[in-house]
Amino acid sequence: MAGMSKKERQTALLRLLEEQPFITDEALAGKFQVSIQTIRLDRLALGIPEVRERIKAVAEQKQTDLRSLEGTEVIGQLIELNLNEMAISILDIEPAHVFSKTKIVRGHHLFAQANSLAVAVIDADVVLTRTANIRFVRSGRLGERLVCKAVVTSNQTDRAHVEVTTRVGEDIVFFGKFIVVKMALDTMIGGG
Amino acid sequence: MAGMSKKERQTALLRLLEEQPFITDEALAGKFQVSIQTIRLDRLALGIPEVRERIKAVAEQKQTDLRSLEGTEVIGQLIELNLNEMAISILDIEPAHVFSKTKIVRGHHLFAQANSLAVAVIDADVVLTRTANIRFVRSGRLGERLVCKAVVTSNQTDRAHVEVTTRVGEDIVFFGKFIVVKMALDTMIGGG
Repeated sequence: MAGMSKKERQTALLRLLEEQPFITDEALAGKFQVSIQTIRLDRLALGIPEVRERIKAVAEQKQTDLRSLEGTEVIGQLIELNLNEMAISILDIEPAHVFSKTKIVRGHHLFAQANSLAVAVIDADVVLTRTANIRFVRSGRLGERLVCKAVVTSNQTDRAHVEVTTRVGEDIVFFGKFIVVKMALDTMIGGG
Repeated sequence: MAGMSKKERQTALLRLLEEQPFITDEALAGKFQVSIQTIRLDRLALGIPEVRERIKAVAEQKQTDLRSLEGTEVIGQLIELNLNEMAISILDIEPAHVFSKTKIVRGHHLFAQANSLAVAVIDADVVLTRTANIRFVRSGRLGERLVCKAVVTSNQTDRAHVEVTTRVGEDIVFFGKFIVVKMALDTMIGGG
């Protein structure tokens, strides 16, 4: 994409951001073979906020659709939610998430992101995980962005199957098959 | 055990605490059919600290045996550790661990306790979880004590199988089969 005029680049940038709204300035600079500073000026000219703000705006909007969880109970930022169909969340790997020795993200944070998304995607008052078969495919590292996608593969009255894949860029980091059960809130309170 | 003399009760108490060092005053009162206050006075007379202090003392001692994790990286308090054989940890369910709606412990805290124990029990510099097949058997609730036990069922040069069971009292709350892989620290740093 080198050798584009500024006008062409900005048009292409807008189109790309529609497809991949959470792409970073670094990745955009790589794609258009320009400096990060050029991308920042392009965004400024086009009135597009930085990626962190774009994610936050979408997350706030999606959280109002949640049924089984409170907004703050989703681990990561919810950026896509079609109840009983699919959901996507983003989690940036921060120092609190990694092993001190290796700077590799701890498994339970990957699990927490995936498990809470498998619950969030279901349209019921109370959803609990019954079983999960999970695989940690490659290690996530400090500073990487975990993009987690949950897809409902089967949905019955009392339970659902959800497949969750977490990626860093194109790489699969985590894959899990979850069976979650649905309950009514009034059977839970005071229940055995 | 009602009708014991004070002397008999204190002797029996000492013996019981040797077998079950983390039994609470409430449970002891039930076993000896006396008041909690009587148990507290017995402990005072015998110089036995309260259960929270007993757990803390043991946890501090066990942490020095850890190899794959730092002490603070074990989720819960480590109270038993025989490297490459078995380990036990305790986690009390606090408000931060539960769903706001149902006061049920969130699955990823159960997973975090189990997963970190499956890693902690292995005698290698770097241990990472590869796969886990897990089942949430019954819900853990606010105030309950999770006792998690990891048993190494097979141990090879590069990997190990670990079975983890978490109980509240006699009830199984969580069961998981973990496959963990072992690595040397120098192959990790700067590694792909």
